[in-house]
Amino acid sequence: MGEVALSNGQSHSLNGYRKSCWYEEEIEDNLRWCFALNSILHTGASQYQDIALLDTKPFGKALVIDGKLQSAETDEFIYHECLVHPPLLHHPNPKNVFIMGGGEGSTARELLRHNTIDQVIMCDIDEEVVDFCKSYLVANWEAFCDPRLKVIINDARAELESREERYDVIVGDLADPIDGGPCYKLYTKSFYEFTVKPRLKEGGIFVTQAGPAGIFSHTEVFSSIYNTLRQVFKYVVAYSAHIPSYADIWGWVMASDSPLELNAEEIDVRVRQRIKGENRYLDGKTFSSASTLSKVVRNSLDNETHVYTEEAARFIHGHGKHA
Amino acid sequence: MGEVALSNGQSHSLNGYRKSCWYEEEIEDNLRWCFALNSILHTGASQYQDIALLDTKPFGKALVIDGKLQSAETDEFIYHECLVHPPLLHHPNPKNVFIMGGGEGSTARELLRHNTIDQVIMCDIDEEVVDFCKSYLVANWEAFCDPRLKVIINDARAELESREERYDVIVGDLADPIDGGPCYKLYTKSFYEFTVKPRLKEGGIFVTQAGPAGIFSHTEVFSSIYNTLRQVFKYVVAYSAHIPSYADIWGWVMASDSPLELNAEEIDVRVRQRIKGENRYLDGKTFSSASTLSKVVRNSLDNETHVYTEEAARFIHGHGKHA
Amino acid sequence: MGEVALSNGQSHSLNGYRKSCWYEEEIEDNLRWCFALNSILHTGASQYQDIALLDTKPFGKALVIDGKLQSAETDEFIYHECLVHPPLLHHPNPKNVFIMGGGEGSTARELLRHNTIDQVIMCDIDEEVVDFCKSYLVANWEAFCDPRLKVIINDARAELESREERYDVIVGDLADPIDGGPCYKLYTKSFYEFTVKPRLKEGGIFVTQAGPAGIFSHTEVFSSIYNTLRQVFKYVVAYSAHIPSYADIWGWVMASDSPLELNAEEIDVRVRQRIKGENRYLDGKTFSSASTLSKVVRNSLDNETHVYTEEAARFIHGHGKHA
Amino acid sequence: MGEVALSNGQSHSLNGYRKSCWYEEEIEDNLRWCFALNSILHTGASQYQDIALLDTKPFGKALVIDGKLQSAETDEFIYHECLVHPPLLHHPNPKNVFIMGGGEGSTARELLRHNTIDQVIMCDIDEEVVDFCKSYLVANWEAFCDPRLKVIINDARAELESREERYDVIVGDLADPIDGGPCYKLYTKSFYEFTVKPRLKEGGIFVTQAGPAGIFSHTEVFSSIYNTLRQVFKYVVAYSAHIPSYADIWGWVMASDSPLELNAEEIDVRVRQRIKGENRYLDGKTFSSASTLSKVVRNSLDNETHVYTEEAARFIHGHGKHA
Repeated sequence: MGEVALSNGQSHSLNGYRKSCWYEEEIEDNLRWCFALNSILHTGASQYQDIALLDTKPFGKALVIDGKLQSAETDEFIYHECLVHPPLLHHPNPKNVFIMGGGEGSTARELLRHNTIDQVIMCDIDEEVVDFCKSYLVANWEAFCDPRLKVIINDARAELESREERYDVIVGDLADPIDGGPCYKLYTKSFYEFTVKPRLKEGGIFVTQAGPAGIFSHTEVFSSIYNTLRQVFKYVVAYSAHIPSYADIWGWVMASDSPLELNAEEIDVRVRQRIKGENRYLDGKTFSSASTLSKVVRNSLDNETHVYTEEAARFIHGHGKHA
Repeated sequence: MGEVALSNGQSHSLNGYRKSCWYEEEIEDNLRWCFALNSILHTGASQYQDIALLDTKPFGKALVIDGKLQSAETDEFIYHECLVHPPLLHHPNPKNVFIMGGGEGSTARELLRHNTIDQVIMCDIDEEVVDFCKSYLVANWEAFCDPRLKVIINDARAELESREERYDVIVGDLADPIDGGPCYKLYTKSFYEFTVKPRLKEGGIFVTQAGPAGIFSHTEVFSSIYNTLRQVFKYVVAYSAHIPSYADIWGWVMASDSPLELNAEEIDVRVRQRIKGENRYLDGKTFSSASTLSKVVRNSLDNETHVYTEEAARFIHGHGKHA
Repeated sequence: MGEVALSNGQSHSLNGYRKSCWYEEEIEDNLRWCFALNSILHTGASQYQDIALLDTKPFGKALVIDGKLQSAETDEFIYHECLVHPPLLHHPNPKNVFIMGGGEGSTARELLRHNTIDQVIMCDIDEEVVDFCKSYLVANWEAFCDPRLKVIINDARAELESREERYDVIVGDLADPIDGGPCYKLYTKSFYEFTVKPRLKEGGIFVTQAGPAGIFSHTEVFSSIYNTLRQVFKYVVAYSAHIPSYADIWGWVMASDSPLELNAEEIDVRVRQRIKGENRYLDGKTFSSASTLSKVVRNSLDNETHVYTEEAARFIHGHGKHA
Repeated sequence: MGEVALSNGQSHSLNGYRKSCWYEEEIEDNLRWCFALNSILHTGASQYQDIALLDTKPFGKALVIDGKLQSAETDEFIYHECLVHPPLLHHPNPKNVFIMGGGEGSTARELLRHNTIDQVIMCDIDEEVVDFCKSYLVANWEAFCDPRLKVIINDARAELESREERYDVIVGDLADPIDGGPCYKLYTKSFYEFTVKPRLKEGGIFVTQAGPAGIFSHTEVFSSIYNTLRQVFKYVVAYSAHIPSYADIWGWVMASDSPLELNAEEIDVRVRQRIKGENRYLDGKTFSSASTLSKVVRNSLDNETHVYTEEAARFIHGHGKHA
């Protein structure tokens, strides 16, 4: 509610109230991140998870699933632009895209800004999350109503395996691999090799969110996901960006059997040609910086030997993107 | 929202979500008291203060004004029964009562349970608080609609001074004396002597909430209020009770020029004769225990020399009852 | 460290620092109690539990075991005076006492203030806790060095069963019954009947701490312990007091086959005759108030039907006294 | 203390204790960042500020001044390598350096790793901070004992103005400009023009820490400092890096009247030639990425018009480096 206009024409600070209610998240066991709350807008629960939409003071409306921040109004554009635009821009002419997860709708929203796109399939397992986001996330209403978007409620693996169609781009917008969660199976070498890759067209690109990518946190899953994709695809590019509401750097990896080489100027040209509206985060130089990892992270990724399999998974504490 | 019924018939624990949102209050500078939140039900602001109604997990719905807990659904009955029933029961036949403050409505609710009562005047300065409570505090709807209740929006002192009527009981249900707040003037010797006492009928009783009364906290204002009233009235009785949501013992003082002497059995008889419904907190033995203060507190009150005047006020950190 | 004297003669507020470090305890799942910290004085671990001595701003030095506050410098006298003095004062001439638990040393300290006492046996299972407290709790050094005190490291039940000696008073200064903890077996009817009672002399008195006794919390274990003792002893008295650092009312129960009847004046006489130094908490009126329970608690205790057995135990969330 | 070896050979988790004590910092009014504590190692106070050395679980030993984290053991290398190495590597042959502030000693430590360095002057106003850090920060003992380091206790401006000597590099390792603090005067155009620049040798380089540089936080002071230096020097380079313990991206600006142009390979060559030991954070590609700012930040800096003067200062909420 922010400032309140009073009858005497003054605005009122509401200080007492504002700082009394807090959202608190354990980033790790020993690390907490707390946002002052304006209100708890909606709460709900699905067969799979608990859902809440909070109005936070530092980051606006925040979608929280199972006690973990998924995305916040003020900075979700960073995550979603980084997930979507690099693979689409590196592709010569992306027409159809399959999103694994993505129920929040923001990934679809960014995809649908590309004027080359004919069809977006969003396949999320949790209908209640999709319905919740469709109802409450105003910024994604236009995307949810776009005729090019088809929403399917199913397990992404089962859906991909049941389809004959191939895609220009497949997007992994899944929860982080968490112990006990179902999603870690969608980060394995065999899944990439036998399920994802066969569903890409010639020249197709796969991209996935890849967990925290900070100087300490990148060894949780980012380096493994990078190395696992390196076993399956010829060209693999890892990149990262700071997301303030996550209190960390976040990582993504894109992979293809065709080269992924565009310089900053070429990216800027394609942004102008293909994307409707102005990007808030990504341009050529930004991607150039984002894909030039710092020394420690670069060396870790180069030297990583762990390959994700169902038998040898790695898990993270519980940040995270889930949709 | 508590348990959520899911389509598969199971109820769901919502653990992650439930412990993410907290109400936090600084009882003192160095002491915090935090309640897990279900939701933030309503927020508002008046000319004087910010108001919020929170749904807390440990104490139910909680009214918070300027960042301070005023009263919580699960235990406000302790505060309000202690404020109202001792003076009314000690009075031979209380017919009309004047409440200074009390906008929450709970004090009126308890008064109106007495079958001797003809008229209750509630005089609160803050119309928005009164309207907010009237809208949202379901437990007080019956009281707000009782024809014996008259609500007046005014400063209690100005109102009392402007009236010629006298009362059997006057109830001080005011905010604690806080530095910079207006209420501390309503705790002074001159106010008691020249404003309150002249408006009591023969045999009339004055009662006031008197702030925290714990073994350490009672010297903040409780002992002063007791001693100040002792300067003005012949008979003064202090008593206290633990209010879980306040994380402290709370105090009240009643005063009269007529003796305040009832034993536990006499109290129980009058409770049965006069009060509609069953008291949840107060009975004869409870009052007997409540008015037998522990050694430290009793000695402090006996030996207190401070008298409240506008020039020599004492303030508390900021618990507290306000309405 | 409190105020710091600076070279320029001013004292310095240290505000920034003071409020940065906090001790946080979950009183219940949904309720937290937080103290600003001056420092973490000592930490250690035994075979059984983790131990820490913190210097807190609101309550002075605080002993914390397994993340639960055990006792705080500024108000432990309330707990220990309530545990020790009522049974000793009700006994005509208490000479020897057996403490189950009590490793902190404060219970022994209060016992040894009685001039009738010849011998105190303190039997605690955890040698490291005893050594830790002996080293760091300055207030108990005199007691630990008193020749009348004998410290035994053993399980209290095994020790009592192995002894032929009988005692005037047996004191249960044990951890609350917590699920998975060993202590709950020392709250059962069979333990009281077959282990404790046979070790009391004619006219002997048993007393035990009995967990939280607040208007909501007393049903966790207080009422059960009361009812269980009522099955074994002819005379049983429950009483309670507010302990600020526990954020709750606490309960104790004393039991005997001889009547436990002293009025306030008789208690005051015995306090003067028998106890060295001045009590800070307990006197006749205080005990009279403490043993007159409020309506809800009194009715719960009267109507309690649960009897503690090893098969039908009740547990509390985790406040608590442990030594 | 980490794991505790017990007599029975098991190590003990100490979970209860570990998560009970927290360091809490308000990054902004509505945003908190909390570290679990192992212990509070040392506390002290100077004429100017309060100092504490904490042992935190997520970030090791942490220096806190006036309730603000200054530097943490596990990641201070990022801040100090970014502050020191870019300007020294861009200089053809840096021999003498003047540090404004820097009392922690880490800036001097990084400078002294360069084999071209003959002399480092560290000028900090607060002797107690310097002494505190010299005593407790083991990682800087070697630097504090290096004969090339001269520590002066004085106001940096007064000291610089009193000297005739000129320097190859001047380093601003000062507290962020905070309202009411003294340091903001050391970020003004007139200070840079009339105090700093005259004390640089031909080809000399000035570098300063420049506050938070995140996508939202860079407008607090980073863009202003950049623009202010642009008014005074011909060549100005801004760069940034994520510092996990600060929960944000941090910024630095270096400035000179000689070109600041080295590509990644040239930087790597100079790192190998000049710096003793291995850098943990900075190499050529890292600097290349760090100095390629993301779209929003780059545009803000390009378009910034605010110039720091004593009359028109900007302040930040209170992160921050101070020494």
